[in-house]
Amino acid sequence: MTDCEGDGSAGLTPLELYEKLTVQGDTVRALKSQKADKADIETAVKLLLALKVDYKKLTGQDYKAGCPPTNVEIPSDNGPASEEGDDLVNPWAVSTSSAKGVDYDKLIVRFGSSKIDQELVDRIERVSGQRAHRFLRRGIFFSHRDMHQVLDAYENKKSFYLYTGRGPSSEAMHVGHLIPFIFTKWLQDVFDIPLVIQLTDDEKYLWKDLTLEDCHRFAVENAKDIIACGFDVNKTFIFSDLDYMGSSPSFYRNVVKIQKHVTFNQVKGIFGFTDSDCIGKISFPAIQAAPSFSNSFPQIFNDRKDVMCLIPCAIDQDPYFRMTRDVAPRIGYPKPALLHSTFFPALQGAQTKMSASDANSSIFLTDTPKQIKTKVNKYAFSGGKDTIEEHRKYGGNTEVDVSFMYLTFFLDDDEQLEKIRQDYTSGALLTGELKKLLIETLQPMISAHQERRKQVTEDMVKQFMVPRKLDFNY
Amino acid sequence: MTDCEGDGSAGLTPLELYEKLTVQGDTVRALKSQKADKADIETAVKLLLALKVDYKKLTGQDYKAGCPPTNVEIPSDNGPASEEGDDLVNPWAVSTSSAKGVDYDKLIVRFGSSKIDQELVDRIERVSGQRAHRFLRRGIFFSHRDMHQVLDAYENKKSFYLYTGRGPSSEAMHVGHLIPFIFTKWLQDVFDIPLVIQLTDDEKYLWKDLTLEDCHRFAVENAKDIIACGFDVNKTFIFSDLDYMGSSPSFYRNVVKIQKHVTFNQVKGIFGFTDSDCIGKISFPAIQAAPSFSNSFPQIFNDRKDVMCLIPCAIDQDPYFRMTRDVAPRIGYPKPALLHSTFFPALQGAQTKMSASDANSSIFLTDTPKQIKTKVNKYAFSGGKDTIEEHRKYGGNTEVDVSFMYLTFFLDDDEQLEKIRQDYTSGALLTGELKKLLIETLQPMISAHQERRKQVTEDMVKQFMVPRKLDFNY
Repeated sequence: MTDCEGDGSAGLTPLELYEKLTVQGDTVRALKSQKADKADIETAVKLLLALKVDYKKLTGQDYKAGCPPTNVEIPSDNGPASEEGDDLVNPWAVSTSSAKGVDYDKLIVRFGSSKIDQELVDRIERVSGQRAHRFLRRGIFFSHRDMHQVLDAYENKKSFYLYTGRGPSSEAMHVGHLIPFIFTKWLQDVFDIPLVIQLTDDEKYLWKDLTLEDCHRFAVENAKDIIACGFDVNKTFIFSDLDYMGSSPSFYRNVVKIQKHVTFNQVKGIFGFTDSDCIGKISFPAIQAAPSFSNSFPQIFNDRKDVMCLIPCAIDQDPYFRMTRDVAPRIGYPKPALLHSTFFPALQGAQTKMSASDANSSIFLTDTPKQIKTKVNKYAFSGGKDTIEEHRKYGGNTEVDVSFMYLTFFLDDDEQLEKIRQDYTSGALLTGELKKLLIETLQPMISAHQERRKQVTEDMVKQFMVPRKLDFNY
Repeated sequence: MTDCEGDGSAGLTPLELYEKLTVQGDTVRALKSQKADKADIETAVKLLLALKVDYKKLTGQDYKAGCPPTNVEIPSDNGPASEEGDDLVNPWAVSTSSAKGVDYDKLIVRFGSSKIDQELVDRIERVSGQRAHRFLRRGIFFSHRDMHQVLDAYENKKSFYLYTGRGPSSEAMHVGHLIPFIFTKWLQDVFDIPLVIQLTDDEKYLWKDLTLEDCHRFAVENAKDIIACGFDVNKTFIFSDLDYMGSSPSFYRNVVKIQKHVTFNQVKGIFGFTDSDCIGKISFPAIQAAPSFSNSFPQIFNDRKDVMCLIPCAIDQDPYFRMTRDVAPRIGYPKPALLHSTFFPALQGAQTKMSASDANSSIFLTDTPKQIKTKVNKYAFSGGKDTIEEHRKYGGNTEVDVSFMYLTFFLDDDEQLEKIRQDYTSGALLTGELKKLLIETLQPMISAHQERRKQVTEDMVKQFMVPRKLDFNY
């Protein structure tokens, strides 16, 4: 196959290549069914296989008929080496060849984190005095580092703070982006603790073809959606790196401290940077690390450097915090603890993360009820069978069905969700009906979000984003 | 010789190794004069040669009897590759094997800058309406980039600003550190323009075994010596990186812009960084570059990004600004112009720069008249002959005589300096007399500096270091 590699597919986008592959697949099938000349069939198959190689190269995914590529960022030199067959998971690219999505148990082993087991969920309930959030009940937050230490300290009246963030690469946020914020708000409420939210507009400037002004504007726009999640202004500080770096000597001091204790060799190993990467990318990890240390926020913690930090985030951000935890003791700070979530699947399937730059890969927070309905019906990858008859007979597969996955994220009622699972698996519930349930869950949720976002004034944004004292008892 | 390399000199300081070499040289001479066994002499010579190799390796300099090593920073992997026999000149190490000092004409060719010729000196006099400063008249500022463009613009009523700086690695500053400031003050006075002075306390933290607090304290202490040079507070902004980065979003924005446009490959080529260097060092050049752009100081230039910048500095800082000039057009800014000075020689000779960490290599701004006298008499490398008789007969060599070199820096009277040169060369002036002239020049100069520094209050330091509007007409 090697000599065919690249034939006829140079310069195509993933979607164009996908379509070319689909056509070629049809051609092969047609030739076979027509019992065409063996040489002709062989030539067509050869081209098909070559295109599949190109497709894997371009998208990092295996070609699957019926699964168009999601707009996954191309796993370039920037991805750290992973073993043959491993899922690709790093801050810039996530992909897997399995329709069920990334193998999270394997990831826990690879990353060296710990599983959030029933015992930990029970303990969180006990310590917080609240029923566990559905994201915990359902394994959406599935992995952690040092969560038991955080709870130990909390039980001994030593409080902690939360840190999460977002890379503002566009104005548009989709429902997947809400996952860490929904969960973080729950943590803030049940533990009654302060929260800092980093908007890495500098990172987006360094990685994307965007101006500084655009990245900063996206940060402020995204802050509105984040505020609309209902955070308490007296306990929440949202900051743009471009602004906060230039308004807090304490923050910059921590950035420099971290930068002194991490070598290029280390970030090369962790993030896969190369010699051709700009020096901004190479030093950026220190900027994402710095909010893990409480004295980066003297206005909140009165220069205390020992307040523990808990970071809820998607697992792809873990490399930053593995680095942070490695540096922490060497500069005299406590290691941050982590709670890792799974990825929110694209409508097209769980092989990849959703992308804010492909409107059809996700439900956006600005979508109208009609758009939501259309997208779910048109794009949500189905685990159902091809015909109603087959579906009634064999049932659907909730493990690959995106509509069902979305319901596990957003439908709070455990019993109702379990009933849907059973009915879909048995074939009692049809794909159209399942999609309808999802649409009816998403539409009011998105409308309510839009309503709350409308209430967010520029003045409120300023309130959240000005460095200031927060309510914090320690 | 290779098999002897390193024998018996491991772990020695440059001075210890120098002393060992001197002893070994004496041994060889003694053996030879005693007509000792040939094998013994050969063994002793072999060890001598091996020690010389180690010495060159450790100090970057050739061993010269009678020239103890100055505390030059060891040219490690951090030095960019230079050709065999070239002087070593980069921001962290300067050395040459010639007692006359670095070959500056060769450096101009290697760095691709332009010589400050008589025509340019004349033009500066014409445009400024002032007699050229002695540093210009005597070739101490000897090289430039784009100075003619600066003057063209100035003649067309387009003003510019000055940018210089200092790396505060200790509280102690020596007379050599004053060179850029003395000259910059003259430029500020004759052109009536604003000046920004960067104190790279972050750099010193990254490169040295110092705490952030120490580096910042050194910055403030050094600022006092700088202020004592007589700068106009209404036209001068002195800043610590650790403070200003955290108080100016505009500065950080420019740093990020530069960091996006410089790759690791580039800084590797320019500064000789390796994969084992920390990411702070790797990205630091952007921080030294940023003050070259006027919109890093919106408080001074009202967000204008097109005000030309002129940087007076020692030639070893040029690599930073070669990089800056490369980046400037790609981010829409004008290239900074430069005026390069030669190095101020150590008392022990012109092979190296002075070092703030070796008290005997230089005259410090805190030295008493007695210390000055002792140091000059004891350490100032002499171009005189060994005996008065020989000196009277053959005369001294001003080209290697450090006392004479110092007078070219600090004695303003051209006629007097020329007479000293002639008298010393002819032998009419003895080394002791020459040293006395230097002592009498330095003592009142340093005393006056100390007097002015005493007048510098904490409040004045604050005034200079607070970001604010300056007098600037454009």
